Amino acid sequence: MIFDIVLEGGSIITMDDKNRILSQSCIAIKDGKIQAIFPIGSSSYEAKQKIDTRNCFIIPGLINMHSHLPMTYFRGLADDLPLNTWLQKYIWPLEAKLIKPQLVYDATLHGASEMIKNGISTTNDMYFCMNSIADACSQVGLRVFISEALIDNESPKEYRDNTIGRRITQLKEEYKDNPLIDFTLAPHSIYACSAQTLKTCAKIAKDNNILIHTHLSEIREEVENCLKIHKLKPVEYLKELGLLEVRGIFAHGIWIEEEEMELLAEKGLSSIAICTESNLKLSSGFAPIKKYQEKGINLCLGTDGVASNNNLDLLTEMSVTAKLHKALNNDPTMLPAQEAFAFVTINAAKALGKEKELGSLETGKIADIAVVSLQELENSPVYNPYSLLVYAINSHSIRDMIIQGKIVMQNRQLCNVNEQQILDKAAEYKEMILQATEK
Amino acid sequence: MIFDIVLEGGSIITMDDKNRILSQSCIAIKDGKIQAIFPIGSSSYEAKQKIDTRNCFIIPGLINMHSHLPMTYFRGLADDLPLNTWLQKYIWPLEAKLIKPQLVYDATLHGASEMIKNGISTTNDMYFCMNSIADACSQVGLRVFISEALIDNESPKEYRDNTIGRRITQLKEEYKDNPLIDFTLAPHSIYACSAQTLKTCAKIAKDNNILIHTHLSEIREEVENCLKIHKLKPVEYLKELGLLEVRGIFAHGIWIEEEEMELLAEKGLSSIAICTESNLKLSSGFAPIKKYQEKGINLCLGTDGVASNNNLDLLTEMSVTAKLHKALNNDPTMLPAQEAFAFVTINAAKALGKEKELGSLETGKIADIAVVSLQELENSPVYNPYSLLVYAINSHSIRDMIIQGKIVMQNRQLCNVNEQQILDKAAEYKEMILQATEK
Repeated sequence: MIFDIVLEGGSIITMDDKNRILSQSCIAIKDGKIQAIFPIGSSSYEAKQKIDTRNCFIIPGLINMHSHLPMTYFRGLADDLPLNTWLQKYIWPLEAKLIKPQLVYDATLHGASEMIKNGISTTNDMYFCMNSIADACSQVGLRVFISEALIDNESPKEYRDNTIGRRITQLKEEYKDNPLIDFTLAPHSIYACSAQTLKTCAKIAKDNNILIHTHLSEIREEVENCLKIHKLKPVEYLKELGLLEVRGIFAHGIWIEEEEMELLAEKGLSSIAICTESNLKLSSGFAPIKKYQEKGINLCLGTDGVASNNNLDLLTEMSVTAKLHKALNNDPTMLPAQEAFAFVTINAAKALGKEKELGSLETGKIADIAVVSLQELENSPVYNPYSLLVYAINSHSIRDMIIQGKIVMQNRQLCNVNEQQILDKAAEYKEMILQATEK
Repeated sequence: MIFDIVLEGGSIITMDDKNRILSQSCIAIKDGKIQAIFPIGSSSYEAKQKIDTRNCFIIPGLINMHSHLPMTYFRGLADDLPLNTWLQKYIWPLEAKLIKPQLVYDATLHGASEMIKNGISTTNDMYFCMNSIADACSQVGLRVFISEALIDNESPKEYRDNTIGRRITQLKEEYKDNPLIDFTLAPHSIYACSAQTLKTCAKIAKDNNILIHTHLSEIREEVENCLKIHKLKPVEYLKELGLLEVRGIFAHGIWIEEEEMELLAEKGLSSIAICTESNLKLSSGFAPIKKYQEKGINLCLGTDGVASNNNLDLLTEMSVTAKLHKALNNDPTMLPAQEAFAFVTINAAKALGKEKELGSLETGKIADIAVVSLQELENSPVYNPYSLLVYAINSHSIRDMIIQGKIVMQNRQLCNVNEQQILDKAAEYKEMILQATEK
């Protein structure tokens, strides 16, 4: 067999079920998959392309479990504000005025490129204009699970009947030959959707084996309102509507009580995508990670959108999460590095139901790989690879990115897009957005 | 006048007392100082070197107010452990075995180089072997305030009489022609020093106009022990010994009560160097920033040593601090970006008593300058420079560094050291340290 690519040398942080670290090893890739992993010099082979990865860590491409890619142009537009001012004065009016397929495409191209530069190979996104997101991610080479945020007061009819189900089925059909693109179903939240919409989503998801992606208990007020209106705690309410019967990714999950966690744990289909930095910056609160772990709930991380973060740096997200929860629990042994690294790799793959294809480096899995250069002062010395990855590394140490067996970044140069054009475009949109803000 | 260097174009984030941002402006440097700031194209001039800084932010070099540079080789050696295990099983025995002038020099060369690559132009360091630290920082081109950690049970005699005072006076004399090097006096902490030592330090500091740098109330147990042994709260005790009569930098400052803050505020000579990431990772606690601000106490930030952080990234430190304290105070308007940026610039200069020379970009001040490239996807679009610097930027966007009017990094290449040699050296020491750990 002639391989497409062989990564030659380096330490492979596999994240397999034995957490093996294979030093001085190679990964051979063909047809989008990892075909073989072997010690350097142990066998002869032919390859169309060989990449020197000695003095590197080879890690699974990172998986970002909650993002809003098309918000990239809103980065830093309105910070240090109360949540309601931020949403009602800035974000929502701007979205109402500006969100069109072309802006969504351009902003997604920017955000998706930025994600790849930060080591992210897959993102689980929620916004509007799904085709634009699909096309932009496809252009950049980023794997994406796309959903449209369903908000009842905007176009209720569509969600109450099965239009949305048909639309997703159509989109799946349209992009079926594109291995990077998949679609999920995203009732925005309990507060933005009627019971009927949520129930319909659960049914569509179940009938069509589609993932549910939604916001859950991000701020305390949400929980209070749910109790007031529906006489149930948020997770109880979701259960009643059938949303725990399907694979679900619940973003934020801050104000969730232990008995709700037990409901989430029952079927083992629900995962929480914690968005630490966004939650800190908007002062939403602290996710109860320790309790989730005690209940056996699968945890992963998301950057959220840059309007609230303000970057797409999942490694920093992981680092802050691992450090913060030590202090919150008054326990420096809480969330050790290896466990935190699983949040952005294998746990995330499990949340997507893709643990047989993504999230670790094993023969037969899809070749989504990040190469980390150790030629940086802050990456030296290395005593423990996980510790380096979680506490010390800078995301700009990500040197090369391979997604679906294709090189999408090499030596920090993106292969499929022109960064200068992306920057120029952002500068143009900035003027337009400022004008729209002033009106 | 022929300038040494002119930075041509870009937005100057001055951090002057009006927080001016000067767009499309130039900075002219000669003899280590900022000689002029003027709009691009407004005057003709000659310069030995011109640097194109269009599409950049020009910011004051960052000031790291608490570090242990020579610990760089201990990065990631022992993480996710209880504080006592970490200190008693790993750090202290290793230090006892290994700390010699050559290791201190080599590790400092590494750490100081890393700091410059992260935009830091000045650090306030505490360790052992002051000459080695001075020589290494001098080699790299980093400005440093150096102190030797005075620990009573190690060499009490030296500190009880005035040997330490004479030694600092001698060192100041020895390095008097080196504008990068200064010395401070560092009784390690209340728990590591006798009352006599602390009192002697206060007197020496007062008589010789030397800064005091010490650890204060990092963990709760320290406070309890101080109360038990000295029948006073830590700050009350310091006051009694005269340590609030001199300019002091108190690292950590987590477990401090309001009445102690009032004592710190009385003379206006005391500053707190908060080490957020170290405090999270070792689960020491959360500094009461809001209360400090209410009492008018000057606040700045430190990375601490990489054994507890594990990087020397002051921008991340600032970002995490600004986000964390919003959540802790349940107030997204708390610690807005501009205020947080002052922690690592002008506030730090004030803490050092050097606000007339450092911490802002103004004519007549020392030319300690960081150039931030905006040619990165995560730095675009820019609506608010402070917001970008605090919430979005990656430290690797620091493109050039000027310290004392000299270029020490250009296009991310360090000018005075060889990075590969530093990495090779770290790999050698790693083996030695691992062997020493196993014994």
